[in-house]
Amino acid sequence: MPKKKDRQTKKDMLFLQDLTQRIPIDAKRILTSPADCASYGYDASFGAYMPDLVIQPQSKEEVVEIMKVANEHHIPVYPRGQGTSLSGGPLPVQGGIVLDCSQWRDKLVIEPDDMVAIVSPGVLTAAINEKASEYGFMYPPDPSSAHVSTIGGNLAENAGGPRGLKYGVTKDYVLGLEVVTPEGKIVKTGGRTVKNVTGYDVTKLIVGSEGTLAIITEATLKLVPKPKASKTLLALFEDIVDAGKAISALLKNGIVPAKLELMDQASIVAVEAYESIGLPTDVDALLLIELDGHPAAIEEEILEVEQWCLEMNAREVTVAQTSEAAAELWKARKLVSPAIVRLKPTKISEDATVPRSKIPDMFAALKEIKETYQIDLVVFGHAGDGNLHPNIIADVRDREEMKRVEQAVAAIFKTAVDLGGTLSGEHGIGTMKAPFMEMEVGKDGLDLMKRIKQSWDPNNILNPGKIFPEKDQKLVLSNG
Amino acid sequence: MPKKKDRQTKKDMLFLQDLTQRIPIDAKRILTSPADCASYGYDASFGAYMPDLVIQPQSKEEVVEIMKVANEHHIPVYPRGQGTSLSGGPLPVQGGIVLDCSQWRDKLVIEPDDMVAIVSPGVLTAAINEKASEYGFMYPPDPSSAHVSTIGGNLAENAGGPRGLKYGVTKDYVLGLEVVTPEGKIVKTGGRTVKNVTGYDVTKLIVGSEGTLAIITEATLKLVPKPKASKTLLALFEDIVDAGKAISALLKNGIVPAKLELMDQASIVAVEAYESIGLPTDVDALLLIELDGHPAAIEEEILEVEQWCLEMNAREVTVAQTSEAAAELWKARKLVSPAIVRLKPTKISEDATVPRSKIPDMFAALKEIKETYQIDLVVFGHAGDGNLHPNIIADVRDREEMKRVEQAVAAIFKTAVDLGGTLSGEHGIGTMKAPFMEMEVGKDGLDLMKRIKQSWDPNNILNPGKIFPEKDQKLVLSNG
Repeated sequence: MPKKKDRQTKKDMLFLQDLTQRIPIDAKRILTSPADCASYGYDASFGAYMPDLVIQPQSKEEVVEIMKVANEHHIPVYPRGQGTSLSGGPLPVQGGIVLDCSQWRDKLVIEPDDMVAIVSPGVLTAAINEKASEYGFMYPPDPSSAHVSTIGGNLAENAGGPRGLKYGVTKDYVLGLEVVTPEGKIVKTGGRTVKNVTGYDVTKLIVGSEGTLAIITEATLKLVPKPKASKTLLALFEDIVDAGKAISALLKNGIVPAKLELMDQASIVAVEAYESIGLPTDVDALLLIELDGHPAAIEEEILEVEQWCLEMNAREVTVAQTSEAAAELWKARKLVSPAIVRLKPTKISEDATVPRSKIPDMFAALKEIKETYQIDLVVFGHAGDGNLHPNIIADVRDREEMKRVEQAVAAIFKTAVDLGGTLSGEHGIGTMKAPFMEMEVGKDGLDLMKRIKQSWDPNNILNPGKIFPEKDQKLVLSNG
Repeated sequence: MPKKKDRQTKKDMLFLQDLTQRIPIDAKRILTSPADCASYGYDASFGAYMPDLVIQPQSKEEVVEIMKVANEHHIPVYPRGQGTSLSGGPLPVQGGIVLDCSQWRDKLVIEPDDMVAIVSPGVLTAAINEKASEYGFMYPPDPSSAHVSTIGGNLAENAGGPRGLKYGVTKDYVLGLEVVTPEGKIVKTGGRTVKNVTGYDVTKLIVGSEGTLAIITEATLKLVPKPKASKTLLALFEDIVDAGKAISALLKNGIVPAKLELMDQASIVAVEAYESIGLPTDVDALLLIELDGHPAAIEEEILEVEQWCLEMNAREVTVAQTSEAAAELWKARKLVSPAIVRLKPTKISEDATVPRSKIPDMFAALKEIKETYQIDLVVFGHAGDGNLHPNIIADVRDREEMKRVEQAVAAIFKTAVDLGGTLSGEHGIGTMKAPFMEMEVGKDGLDLMKRIKQSWDPNNILNPGKIFPEKDQKLVLSNG
């Protein structure tokens, strides 16, 4: 009997033969060399896996044929954008074909009368907002990766971002999709109306399904009027719990900032070591708050925000007087991720999310976890909606440390769920969080999801190994 | 062989025996008399069907046993709120059990720190907003029926309302559900965080699934801060197309009203005949516009709205100077439905929705349909989001007229879909629109929905006959 790898290669050859007979794909868009394939084996999360083949489709017709042939040959297919996933979304964990959609950028059309954008999957997310801006509109979802990540990836993972607090996440802006099913059928879901209750909401089911239910080949996105003005405020706190109380006070008093971000002391220290912005490193936490809307309203509201922060014991509150000063403050927030990987090479980025009322409890629990497992933990993120980013930095070569990290990650997930929260607010489940799914959604809840997956993809060829745990699957980081 | 009705009765008896053995349900909450059952045979749409049995559950445990036994006996179950559905959602079209959840009102809790409401399915929608208001919050979805419809029904149908333009629809406010599956399993979906990407979005799949996928036993709803102020403006137009242009101009210039409603001449005339409000009956259309938000912002924006309306040839624009004057204007909008049924006894209420840019085209097409089929057509509704309510008034006893109505309804659906719109913006598909499903979502799109239904409800016992067309099903109104 031939070895598994040989069988795989033969299967791939047959697949390619079949595919090229059915549809002419430029050979330059089919990558087979180990060097090419290797660069599609990882993303911004953990682990690396070798695909057998990479195809760069550029039309729905190509995707249809790829899926039909893959489905006949039972070869796994993994859709991929720019590989910025923090949860392992595009990782080819069972070998097979990576479908690299990042080059598929032929359509980015704004239709101002309907206030929508029509986009191909490979368009960069930031490009949509830039183009919308020319028409006086905004595409609100703003994941930190917006300048490098594709809308296809954002749709698959239901990406969030700082603006989520006021404006919601990717899903809230998807009116319609064109997709190819695992069996190679083209289906249009939703449309271009804001209201639509015709049958099941297949659009919102596919968005956030992590590429396991269908390949997105086009999306119709809702735009909103660009806010007329914005203001940014920085508040420094000597106790992170006071920062939590300030957040609560603002929201309960009717102020909904566009962004409300927190950085703890460890992240401030890391940023200042990386590039001196001039932030004080002796505070326990800082809040960065952006208000947007009508100029008259935000002039008044910014004073209210200032007062509430001072009331909750802020040491100091500063309002950025120019847009340059505001941009400088937001730069600090953006530098957190690059800054902390300077400290140690391996970053485990989580986004466990808790109800707003539990933010102080989560802070306390994270502090305890940090001490119990002796790990380097940095906390920052979208505090206003409870979507914190506890990041553990470690060295993957240190197996003993990684064992502790494994335990700490499990403890973070358990704490979030115990507090009535969720494993993931915006990064997705992917590979690493799959073992914890049942803990949150229950056996019967997971079963409902599995039934959908099985009914749409009976051969389980579309992005297998994601979301759903394998039998007895456990989190393993210590063999990386 | 016993007659069908006798077999049915025997089946019901066995079901009841089984049920009462498993769980004690107060006999007063099980209705079997024909008189009682008959009043559960209709809703606010078209047609009447006799159920075999009505049960009024008041706990999830009761629902679990009902579903388990019904699933074993293959008896259809139809969840029902207050029966205000405009699409036939709760109609027992295949006989069986109506599950009357309207008495299940034991929970309506506001949790201010998380800005959520936790509710039982029988709670009236308006009661949620009233209770939220005590805490300074708002529950935005406001279907016209809010004072009489239940949140359970609103969730099943994904109800909209005037505030949909700025605030979205029911689905946008559902963070989590507790449901009972067709096989009698309790499942919790989502949670109480605003961001959640843990697995498939089963919450948003169930909301709007018209009671065909699960019975909702509890919901966690997102609240928002109550706007600080609001202003209402009335604009009169001599040409309905100018009204459409004014809508477009506002939205494109960054003004998003809380409500933007249109009434055509026929609806104005009907209202004035019903109760004299003092609206001019010689205009082609009027717009009712409500702005809300920060007082300083709306003071300025209301002037902009006034200017845009005048620019687009409004004959007259009036700003309500007091909240009483504003309420009086909104009363006119609310009176449209009761007013038009005075004219003729049968009302066919549609809510075909088109992209914003196609609103003038839709007006033109509706005018043509009215003439072609010689029907009494009244147009009003949520013009700002393209969600019009073309209402046909007729007399069901006039078969010849009803034949023309059938054709006109089909023409309205076809026009909406041809214009890139949808069969239903907020009322749901139910029974009457099922024959048109494939026209909008396509054969393969409908197949994806069917697979979900089959995988969750293999015996098709939960609200059968809705959404999915029977083989060769056609719209029939003329045998009513």
